[in-house]
Amino acid sequence: MSLVELRTAILAKNDDLAAALRADLAAAGTYVVNLLSGPGSGKTALLELLLQRCVERGVPAAALTGDLATENDARRLARSGAPVRQIVTDGLCHLEADLVRDHLAGWLPEGTRLLFVENVGNLVCPASYDLGESLRVVLAAVTEGEDKPEKYPTAYRWADLVVLTKVDLVAACAFDEETFRASVQGVHPGVEVVTTSARTGEGVDGLLTRLLPPLP
Amino acid sequence: MSLVELRTAILAKNDDLAAALRADLAAAGTYVVNLLSGPGSGKTALLELLLQRCVERGVPAAALTGDLATENDARRLARSGAPVRQIVTDGLCHLEADLVRDHLAGWLPEGTRLLFVENVGNLVCPASYDLGESLRVVLAAVTEGEDKPEKYPTAYRWADLVVLTKVDLVAACAFDEETFRASVQGVHPGVEVVTTSARTGEGVDGLLTRLLPPLP
Repeated sequence: MSLVELRTAILAKNDDLAAALRADLAAAGTYVVNLLSGPGSGKTALLELLLQRCVERGVPAAALTGDLATENDARRLARSGAPVRQIVTDGLCHLEADLVRDHLAGWLPEGTRLLFVENVGNLVCPASYDLGESLRVVLAAVTEGEDKPEKYPTAYRWADLVVLTKVDLVAACAFDEETFRASVQGVHPGVEVVTTSARTGEGVDGLLTRLLPPLP
Repeated sequence: MSLVELRTAILAKNDDLAAALRADLAAAGTYVVNLLSGPGSGKTALLELLLQRCVERGVPAAALTGDLATENDARRLARSGAPVRQIVTDGLCHLEADLVRDHLAGWLPEGTRLLFVENVGNLVCPASYDLGESLRVVLAAVTEGEDKPEKYPTAYRWADLVVLTKVDLVAACAFDEETFRASVQGVHPGVEVVTTSARTGEGVDGLLTRLLPPLP
């Protein structure tokens, strides 16, 4: 079997697992949000605020957080009061559906309405792996520049929502939001872009409202 | 053949190719610097300045720049006046030695003393692939936070030099350099850290001096 054939088989198996996981979680009333970005885009800081808001609003939420190494992110996120579990991939550059399924088994609290899955910080490989999510969100920090959508097209093409983070640094970085939005639209016409700052809290409540599933 | 066996075979083949390429380039008097970082860490901006300085100082330098998509970076870098060639990986998440070798063949100007290879923006996968470089440099932007070395240990463990970029934004990001340096030392004790800003030019001349090979 060639590498291409092997990769195709792995992706097909992952897709099947992800579809089954999505069906199981939907049946349990759990809506899954997959958060994707490069390293240092502010996924964890934003997720900590989102979990805090869920606790405050009485929305049963939980998070799985993936990293190559360390349990640091799980410790940070647990400060929110929401249930959090770390997935240490031990070098694997992305999460896969079986890792998500195995870490949920026997852990996910019954009645969880919103489950966040924070992927490994990598704007390339995670884009190919369905994790059973209902919504895929790509984060871009203003500190990364305006051109990332066209340079990492797969991540943006398959995103249901784009979140621009660290907008408190727009002036310091001389970031041009219109250029960024044009780059997003060039890769994925029509996709919504939401702006946030974990430092000031700007946009976080609106984002959570956008992420919440419709009430059953 | 299992995925692990296949991956081991691919890496072993790449290592052999890289060793041969390093020997060929050394024989031709060309010293190769492999630049690694996540997306938006400022690799291209810093490289543009380094190439400009090489042109000004009369150092024969050239660059290969890798991206999933677009020739944008080659266009930016060519403004320096140095020879630049784009490698479009078409989805591949890292460069490999054969891609570098094939793009150098018939293109690399004779007498090139310093060849920069700008890897795909990804702090995970490129760390496993030797490209025939003499020096491997990992870039971290202050905008990414202090904790990336321990969270992406492979990239830092195999780096010969760490370059901290965008230091003009230290105050805006409330970045703590000592915490970052401690994180670096925890993963790779003794490795040197150089601070730079492509916006102000701080540290760029010193970095180039550090990167230049000893005169034959």
